Amino acid sequence: MKKSIGAKTIVFPTPVFIIGTYDINGKPNAMAVAWGGICCSEPPCVSISLREATYSFGNIMEHKAFTLNIPSEKYLREADYLGLVSGKEENKFISAGFTAVKSELVDAPYIKEFSFILECSVIQTLKIGLHTQFIGEIKDVKADENVLNKEGNPDIEKIMPIIFNPATRTYYGLGRYLGEAFSIGKKQK
Amino acid sequence: MKKSIGAKTIVFPTPVFIIGTYDINGKPNAMAVAWGGICCSEPPCVSISLREATYSFGNIMEHKAFTLNIPSEKYLREADYLGLVSGKEENKFISAGFTAVKSELVDAPYIKEFSFILECSVIQTLKIGLHTQFIGEIKDVKADENVLNKEGNPDIEKIMPIIFNPATRTYYGLGRYLGEAFSIGKKQK
Repeated sequence: MKKSIGAKTIVFPTPVFIIGTYDINGKPNAMAVAWGGICCSEPPCVSISLREATYSFGNIMEHKAFTLNIPSEKYLREADYLGLVSGKEENKFISAGFTAVKSELVDAPYIKEFSFILECSVIQTLKIGLHTQFIGEIKDVKADENVLNKEGNPDIEKIMPIIFNPATRTYYGLGRYLGEAFSIGKKQK
Repeated sequence: MKKSIGAKTIVFPTPVFIIGTYDINGKPNAMAVAWGGICCSEPPCVSISLREATYSFGNIMEHKAFTLNIPSEKYLREADYLGLVSGKEENKFISAGFTAVKSELVDAPYIKEFSFILECSVIQTLKIGLHTQFIGEIKDVKADENVLNKEGNPDIEKIMPIIFNPATRTYYGLGRYLGEAFSIGKKQK
């Protein structure tokens, strides 16, 4: 018998994305976002949801672009910090100790220290309620060579992404390999 | 120096959601979806992206509702199977060995065997490209009592969600506890 726990925003896993933007004066900003994910295969797109009150919201509206930077476990403290402070108050790139690299493809900065980043151009904006969703077309994905496997694919075990748990507002790491997708289910047929 | 790997649909972590719907004749269907996530806090909403060609797409258009069921590691084989076969061909609830429970809140079935489920009513539809996004307002979240902690909150370590890795099309489990959100970053200030 299932118990109702109310209309809460809880799914598992939930990501931790660090969103890179420029403000109106070209100052780079980085913000932690947990509401988002891939939303289309062709064109390749990712969606992120932001409150209008955030500094990044205005930045994205102005420049129609953002980068999506995947934090590794080792940057947990910095990633959490980027969700605690607003770019209105300070230069978060500096206080987090990060280097802003200007993307050559979109009008937004990415985080040099992170091993895996996406460069996105906003193609649609959808107001839902408190949050507005930005649909970003993925123009390119870039990764440090040391997180690529022999085939040149990103290796999740080297990237070590952070998993956010919205139920208890805690973070988790990546667990063990379970199996191959579109394969392990064939036994069920 | 970062290496370009092209405009690919890769972020970490990516979820595995099992979407429950009814077809036009009331036959329940379950489909595995990896493109989605929470997209608004108020009203509480989750977005999922589906190709028009899928059976579930027509079902959601018809009933304006779906359930989002979180598979545990122990249902990895079944979850993968639900992404391999179309509901056009068979009753996937039966072939996966699942029991369809009719939601009392929305016009969709949930999976009795899964410990954590969301009941969603579609409030917006956004065509992006190959995929169309459904914005589902979360009407309720239900969980088995044995996955709730002492405070009545869902315990991610008991739910044991599956993480999809779109880079190599593989699955991973949940890893170790890393820390408290909106707290660990205070040290960075």
